[in-house]
Amino acid sequence: MSFDESNNWGRWGSEDERGALNLLTPEAVVAAARCVRDGRVISLSLPIRGATSSPAPATVPHLRGRPLPQHFMSIDGGDYAAGTRPIGAGLKMADDALIVTPHGTTTHLDALCHMWSGDALYNGHPADRVRSYGAGRCGIDKAGPVVARGVLVDVPRLRGVPHLAAGDRVEPDDLEGAGLRPGDVAVIRTGWPLVWRAEGPDAYWAGQPGLSARAGRALAALDVSVVAADNAAIGGLNGRQLADEGPDDDLHLILLWRHGVHLAEMLWLEELADALDGTGRDDFLFVAAPLKIEGGTASPIDPIAVL
Amino acid sequence: MSFDESNNWGRWGSEDERGALNLLTPEAVVAAARCVRDGRVISLSLPIRGATSSPAPATVPHLRGRPLPQHFMSIDGGDYAAGTRPIGAGLKMADDALIVTPHGTTTHLDALCHMWSGDALYNGHPADRVRSYGAGRCGIDKAGPVVARGVLVDVPRLRGVPHLAAGDRVEPDDLEGAGLRPGDVAVIRTGWPLVWRAEGPDAYWAGQPGLSARAGRALAALDVSVVAADNAAIGGLNGRQLADEGPDDDLHLILLWRHGVHLAEMLWLEELADALDGTGRDDFLFVAAPLKIEGGTASPIDPIAVL
Amino acid sequence: MSFDESNNWGRWGSEDERGALNLLTPEAVVAAARCVRDGRVISLSLPIRGATSSPAPATVPHLRGRPLPQHFMSIDGGDYAAGTRPIGAGLKMADDALIVTPHGTTTHLDALCHMWSGDALYNGHPADRVRSYGAGRCGIDKAGPVVARGVLVDVPRLRGVPHLAAGDRVEPDDLEGAGLRPGDVAVIRTGWPLVWRAEGPDAYWAGQPGLSARAGRALAALDVSVVAADNAAIGGLNGRQLADEGPDDDLHLILLWRHGVHLAEMLWLEELADALDGTGRDDFLFVAAPLKIEGGTASPIDPIAVL
Amino acid sequence: MSFDESNNWGRWGSEDERGALNLLTPEAVVAAARCVRDGRVISLSLPIRGATSSPAPATVPHLRGRPLPQHFMSIDGGDYAAGTRPIGAGLKMADDALIVTPHGTTTHLDALCHMWSGDALYNGHPADRVRSYGAGRCGIDKAGPVVARGVLVDVPRLRGVPHLAAGDRVEPDDLEGAGLRPGDVAVIRTGWPLVWRAEGPDAYWAGQPGLSARAGRALAALDVSVVAADNAAIGGLNGRQLADEGPDDDLHLILLWRHGVHLAEMLWLEELADALDGTGRDDFLFVAAPLKIEGGTASPIDPIAVL
Repeated sequence: MSFDESNNWGRWGSEDERGALNLLTPEAVVAAARCVRDGRVISLSLPIRGATSSPAPATVPHLRGRPLPQHFMSIDGGDYAAGTRPIGAGLKMADDALIVTPHGTTTHLDALCHMWSGDALYNGHPADRVRSYGAGRCGIDKAGPVVARGVLVDVPRLRGVPHLAAGDRVEPDDLEGAGLRPGDVAVIRTGWPLVWRAEGPDAYWAGQPGLSARAGRALAALDVSVVAADNAAIGGLNGRQLADEGPDDDLHLILLWRHGVHLAEMLWLEELADALDGTGRDDFLFVAAPLKIEGGTASPIDPIAVL
Repeated sequence: MSFDESNNWGRWGSEDERGALNLLTPEAVVAAARCVRDGRVISLSLPIRGATSSPAPATVPHLRGRPLPQHFMSIDGGDYAAGTRPIGAGLKMADDALIVTPHGTTTHLDALCHMWSGDALYNGHPADRVRSYGAGRCGIDKAGPVVARGVLVDVPRLRGVPHLAAGDRVEPDDLEGAGLRPGDVAVIRTGWPLVWRAEGPDAYWAGQPGLSARAGRALAALDVSVVAADNAAIGGLNGRQLADEGPDDDLHLILLWRHGVHLAEMLWLEELADALDGTGRDDFLFVAAPLKIEGGTASPIDPIAVL
Repeated sequence: MSFDESNNWGRWGSEDERGALNLLTPEAVVAAARCVRDGRVISLSLPIRGATSSPAPATVPHLRGRPLPQHFMSIDGGDYAAGTRPIGAGLKMADDALIVTPHGTTTHLDALCHMWSGDALYNGHPADRVRSYGAGRCGIDKAGPVVARGVLVDVPRLRGVPHLAAGDRVEPDDLEGAGLRPGDVAVIRTGWPLVWRAEGPDAYWAGQPGLSARAGRALAALDVSVVAADNAAIGGLNGRQLADEGPDDDLHLILLWRHGVHLAEMLWLEELADALDGTGRDDFLFVAAPLKIEGGTASPIDPIAVL
Repeated sequence: MSFDESNNWGRWGSEDERGALNLLTPEAVVAAARCVRDGRVISLSLPIRGATSSPAPATVPHLRGRPLPQHFMSIDGGDYAAGTRPIGAGLKMADDALIVTPHGTTTHLDALCHMWSGDALYNGHPADRVRSYGAGRCGIDKAGPVVARGVLVDVPRLRGVPHLAAGDRVEPDDLEGAGLRPGDVAVIRTGWPLVWRAEGPDAYWAGQPGLSARAGRALAALDVSVVAADNAAIGGLNGRQLADEGPDDDLHLILLWRHGVHLAEMLWLEELADALDGTGRDDFLFVAAPLKIEGGTASPIDPIAVL
């Protein structure tokens, strides 16, 4: 009944389950590393806030109704203050545990098994191999690290607004000046997390801006390896937190399912946008290394931009 | 009673809680990126195997008695095979959750709050700020991404053995030819995970090779930013899975606590060792981006080497 | 560093950590059993709804901001429908896991360590023994099963209303006709869960009816063993889900802390109330057996009334 | 995609999903209550030991390879010792969370959906309704509380041994003198947990005594409502922790699947056996109230005997 008890720890990924990450050739990686000029490293993730002794977990942007992260200490400084004896001649330690459901709650990379239509995943892999004990095909353990040239598409700045509105859609025109090349990570800024910060959860949940289907097709045609965005679902959402597009135009089906383009969602792009603003550059080394969760549908990540 | 409900998502790390990661200056980052020559990307992590419907989680190297990862699907392909209706006109999805306790169970980066002696953490931060709702000082959220030059110290190959024995200790001599510079990540291979694979858990638990205290001091003196190793505790372990050293010589106290050198443990270094063997090079771009778990004592990571 | 590795599985409870449960003498238990006349068994708990693939967990009454139950299958019928092979000659199985934080999320019994003031728990036990690895004093494992005469105090019916309003408080007068005797479980119905069902979460969260401090003192004076109610905190709550009383009048401090009266919260009493209505009886055999969670601050329970 | 968002909290169980629990008629409940003579209450459960800061969880009897309970405090006395401010004018609290997988790790009641053969659960309910988001048929939420006459079958005492040996099987002869009647809970003592205590895990895991298939059929023919035992699987286990019987003779298939007899496993019966020894009585009021985990395959329970 087991999922995978092999000792193939060295093996990681099979070509036909990596999708567009196959575009990350050695040549592309070398070129991406050459994007490092200033040496500034910027984290692109939201915090994972799991202190359940208070409503703190609910204060970070998330989709309504999702199970929020839970973080627990199994031993900590408070215990020593209360009288717990150190180990041996004086060693003290803190230890902890994390419960996390990445989709809709934190910055994460989708596995190719996350969404599909019909009976087959991306590339024809059978969907019935995605079972309770993990995805036997196209799990996040098959993805491998993303080391690529990243390009920021700062849509609010292009349009001269602080952030897109819930009903706004990123269109192919917005992507045109970005100079995206095959293998690049398209990093799409909508600015929507600013709404959470400034106006609170209800405003954030009233809908979300995102890519239009046409923009999704344009990115697929450009052969990007990953689409990363600061909204929750790449495409836009309505007030019930659902996509309005039908299957032909659903962004996950276009990018993840039909073209094997991995999706990174819920990034925090404000620092990156500020750093690039006015510099005339929009590219950088992008690195994201998903945890090798066997059969996982996603991994929480801290994607980084190295300028 | 809350831990941190601020909206400071952009802020990451405070200088006095980052320890040796402050060595990762922009200049060092630029130099590290220049180590990329071949464009080959190698993952340095063990898998996270959490399918609890079988004993699979117990088949990956771990310290005896630790709570192993648990991975659950909340909806999957099996459900659709059983009759679950797709969303709307045909969308299907898989969703999941992960429970993980990094220390002793998987590849991870230690936060500076993980170990201490007396009443103060690294740099004098009060240990009583490490509480049930997270470490208010020196948590893993304060670390920030590691982007540095990595140097492999392949001790078994230096000594002409397939792997070190449980009682072996890495000594300063082993480090001498490595050309370590300030800010580098010292990646120490003992080969011990091969024992799990070849001989099983009991052999792995019979003890572990690791750094001697003198080697730990040498690394601290070299101003490395991180020490990363494929054993479970940087230092060696006896058959009860404890360190034999007293507080003066304990590797965590020397490196993590006294010098603020972050520790990455339980790496899988076999592929990297094979890739570098015979090439005359031992350095590469090392990247590890811990999840921004607020108040965490560690984060699971997939560290990568870019050759 | 361990909490309790003894083999004292037979031992359960120590007299000075059981509080008012010491009133459950053999004689009281025999008398309670004699309350059984009709043989009807009524469950007094809310469901534990943990299917996180949808917002289902949020549809059961709970305090806003609390971590909701999570229930996962590690193998199920969907997996077999998708092709998982049975064990041996045909055995199939379903297996699961539950994550639960009882306070504020489901029907539960509070341990005596749940609330206190100053440095001591109930009966002078040191509060600093309540640590990250469990409560070394007054944990729910010390409580033991509750087998007692239960008496329903159906306050809405006494007052001729369908349910109390958020600002209403149960007063000593309401308790007077109930015929409560030492050792009884006082089961207090406010009807507040009906508000969740009829008007939704926001109405439920706008405040809660509950016992006044005077009523709490009256119950303590009557030497009841347990106070069980269908609201979330025995006492009333304001719109911020907090009690308005100061320490002298806080219901948890009066009952749980000063008098060792265990509290059962978030019961579902509608069926019981209907069954007793018009019968002229208000007593029954009450049984609640908390899980022996070592060092726990509470246990989820399904309390039962046997009429 | 949701499992059950109805508001039917009052509804509990449907007759055709309750199996032999339908034998618990009001008359049977009244008769069971009359078994209470001494008023002594005995808990029949193992502790739930989840302090993961040490190997404590592994010190309680369990099947090898199962995910053990994890118990965490989200705030505790140590935090206040370390400086956490009380709420308002002095209120302090402890709060916690539990992760539990009942089968093979603690005292629990199996749901009728736990095991089956072919495509149908007990009573023909479709097995493909048992999905990742819970069992839509025959879940533990359908069971309802067990209030019945319990009868201890103390097999070691009948045979004059301290406990059965791993290879021993309980036979119909052992049951004959017990006076079991329809609706009773047959409580079978093997004494096997004593082996864990006296000889340790390896001895406990070397196999387990249990019911023979013939004894299982005899109990089904007697129309008992529940079979409760102190071993891990009702039937015996071999050294690989598997049953040797084929599908016809598998105890779960005979009792749970074919006859709808709920199974309670991993009880701690030593105190009960001592209490009844030499008294000439073997019956008592048995109560077990599973948590109403929607779609659960089992619930942890603290079953009680009231003598």
